[in-house]
Amino acid sequence: MTDDYAFLVEALAPERVSVDEYARAEHAGDWGSRPEDEVDPDVVVWPTTTEEVAAVLAAANERGIPVTPYAAGTGLEGNAVPSEAGISMDLTRMDDILDIRPEDHQIDVQPGVLGSAVDETAADHGLFFPPLPSSGDISTIGGMIATDASGMQTVKYGEVADWVLELEAVLADGTVISAGSKAAKTSAGYNLKDLLVGSEGTLAVVTRATLELAGRPQQVRGGRAVFSDLADAGAAIADAVQSGVDVAKIELVGRRAVEVANAYVGTDLPDRPMVFVEFHADHGIGEEIEFCRTVFAAHDPIAFEMAGEAEMEELWQLRKDMAYALDEWDSDTRQLHPGDVTVPMSEFPDIVRFARERADAADLFMACYGHAGDGNLHYEILVDPDDEDEVERGEEVYAAVVERAIELGGTATGEHGVGLGKREFLATEHGEGSVRAMRAIKDALDPNGTLNPGKIFPDEG
Amino acid sequence: MTDDYAFLVEALAPERVSVDEYARAEHAGDWGSRPEDEVDPDVVVWPTTTEEVAAVLAAANERGIPVTPYAAGTGLEGNAVPSEAGISMDLTRMDDILDIRPEDHQIDVQPGVLGSAVDETAADHGLFFPPLPSSGDISTIGGMIATDASGMQTVKYGEVADWVLELEAVLADGTVISAGSKAAKTSAGYNLKDLLVGSEGTLAVVTRATLELAGRPQQVRGGRAVFSDLADAGAAIADAVQSGVDVAKIELVGRRAVEVANAYVGTDLPDRPMVFVEFHADHGIGEEIEFCRTVFAAHDPIAFEMAGEAEMEELWQLRKDMAYALDEWDSDTRQLHPGDVTVPMSEFPDIVRFARERADAADLFMACYGHAGDGNLHYEILVDPDDEDEVERGEEVYAAVVERAIELGGTATGEHGVGLGKREFLATEHGEGSVRAMRAIKDALDPNGTLNPGKIFPDEG
Repeated sequence: MTDDYAFLVEALAPERVSVDEYARAEHAGDWGSRPEDEVDPDVVVWPTTTEEVAAVLAAANERGIPVTPYAAGTGLEGNAVPSEAGISMDLTRMDDILDIRPEDHQIDVQPGVLGSAVDETAADHGLFFPPLPSSGDISTIGGMIATDASGMQTVKYGEVADWVLELEAVLADGTVISAGSKAAKTSAGYNLKDLLVGSEGTLAVVTRATLELAGRPQQVRGGRAVFSDLADAGAAIADAVQSGVDVAKIELVGRRAVEVANAYVGTDLPDRPMVFVEFHADHGIGEEIEFCRTVFAAHDPIAFEMAGEAEMEELWQLRKDMAYALDEWDSDTRQLHPGDVTVPMSEFPDIVRFARERADAADLFMACYGHAGDGNLHYEILVDPDDEDEVERGEEVYAAVVERAIELGGTATGEHGVGLGKREFLATEHGEGSVRAMRAIKDALDPNGTLNPGKIFPDEG
Repeated sequence: MTDDYAFLVEALAPERVSVDEYARAEHAGDWGSRPEDEVDPDVVVWPTTTEEVAAVLAAANERGIPVTPYAAGTGLEGNAVPSEAGISMDLTRMDDILDIRPEDHQIDVQPGVLGSAVDETAADHGLFFPPLPSSGDISTIGGMIATDASGMQTVKYGEVADWVLELEAVLADGTVISAGSKAAKTSAGYNLKDLLVGSEGTLAVVTRATLELAGRPQQVRGGRAVFSDLADAGAAIADAVQSGVDVAKIELVGRRAVEVANAYVGTDLPDRPMVFVEFHADHGIGEEIEFCRTVFAAHDPIAFEMAGEAEMEELWQLRKDMAYALDEWDSDTRQLHPGDVTVPMSEFPDIVRFARERADAADLFMACYGHAGDGNLHYEILVDPDDEDEVERGEEVYAAVVERAIELGGTATGEHGVGLGKREFLATEHGEGSVRAMRAIKDALDPNGTLNPGKIFPDEG
């Protein structure tokens, strides 16, 4: 421990402060950070209470030492990379479920709790946490709040922000604040809650969250439609959403993505674009399924099959394992930055076609999938990192798809946040004036730039 | 026109700038402002374009002249009172519907458009604007955004913020910004959209909004349950919401409120607490109604009747006219500040009982009603303004109910905003640290304090 960080041992027990090389290396990056962007923090701390978070922040802020919150490290945009070194604040030991009030459909948790733990606790009371992302069994609530994550059920239930009622958070100077309300709605002053959600730990460290839960639907049915090409699949999805089919999940998996997932999961699904659907209802689920079938029928599906209850888990495994499958596909390639564009529903077929055509024209391997019912497309370009020309072509196509999505009224990042990876697109999407306004808010709440420096804003890092 | 305001005639056509006494008096207050709080602005302007809004703001900001946005004046907390005089910026001439994209369930509107106009345009395409408040046929979208308003259907569909996708707004210095996205979700930087929604014109003037619309349900049925006392009615509502009955509206009208409404509407409903319900579904509505009937049955209803389609309008008239009915009840009394507390659902019976008991103990006339399914209670105390002792007792009960709601984890204001009327409760609800953070954001975006000074923050005005 260098003298510079001796103050941390006053704020925390010594075993919760580490300058160990391995611990520091473990906190240098996240799932989506490029090796060249990763930075070892100088020290890692594991606070266990709000008071400890506040003590560390107040002391670091006074000393001009950066603090970057860290949890499961499952971010996809380098959101938790300690770009200016300093302190990595690991929140995984604040992983208690503090209270559940089933009569109010509310649960209070610490930020390090896994999403799946929330869901399991809720299940004991006939409830669930609807916006859980696909990574929910390994990612934390704090991380989901940091990026305003969403998941397969967002098409019906909304994103994480919609299910966060109240937050306790610590500002850069150590001030503990509360934001939001345990009431279902409030108009009491500025909406700090939704300002903190999605701010990627650059404005405050969340130390407690009151989440809303939903009652489990009485009826759940899943199924799968196969289309001959991506255009038909995209059009079928847009048509279903626009027609008001009440789907709880509607996911696109492109032909390449099916191929990749088949290899990983060991399945033998037809090598065609697929649309996975799930329906939730308390009654009348059969009518909703038939409605969907009718809408899909106009787009030449090769098949549309509903799964039995026993097959549901298997049905979704392929979609859930997509991220792992891509990692394992070819050891000679690596994935470029994860694609996460989201566009208005009517533009979804356009962005899918655009991405596909550009990738083909540039002779790139690209897998397409995503939360299609939200207009959210993940497009994953795999390149040989030693092939400079291929990497360059990949970068060009990657950026062209983002720019196209923004032109279509959409966003560079539907659910992963800006982190390091999407900074260059922020002003294109929102305009210089909006970025200046965001910057003014950052400077107002964190004048020393203590919290997670180098993220979100294009002029930093 | 004094020389001080000559610059306005350069920014706007002369007929859209007025120092006329009548025009100024018309912009001195709103529905909820107390006469003693009202202030005539020095001048009223009616901009018609974003550029004009920007020009007025930039010039006023430079000169240190306050600008208070004004629209229909239907606010209930003095939100649009120009407390420090200066310019009242009337946005009712920016009342165009700019575009509707039914395939994306989106509509672009100017801020002065009436809520009912949005709903009517949407209806032509089989769509509707779900969070419309009861005052929707006389209040504007801009005003609804300013307070994050909500309505009878919020229990099922959410509040105004949930249906605002993207905003164009002008900051105090004239900078035009965009916030949010036309995509269904975004994680691209700070959520300025939800910061502006509910900020009551203190951070920016909204000049355009992209709203989301919903498909009209295939089945709609309304009904009414009568209970022998308020406690049973409150418990039945809490039970229905907690049990997951899928109601689109669930409104409480207390005995006193029924009496007042009967007199105004000329109906002859039984003098008992009532619960009004409405169900929306695409199929299976009968099952949902039966589910509700079963839940209500446990709370000793005197009656539970569903209306035929022809009677629906009449059914809701009584609830919709409640605000007018209270105004007309007794010309010797006036209403104290409108009550708008909101609490977690399980506490709703408690807050209803608390309010009733306190009013009875203080020998006050109080009518209770509200969006009970959100835990939102409107309690309206009528007092003789010349009876100082009664006014004082009224003020005490009014404040006690707010404080009780906050103790129960709720909010001072569910849907009306803070304005002038709820400033004293802001720190009690959110804590000093949060109020300081809100203040820091205000100072960062409006350093000269140009926009709507004297509102929201307790230390001003």
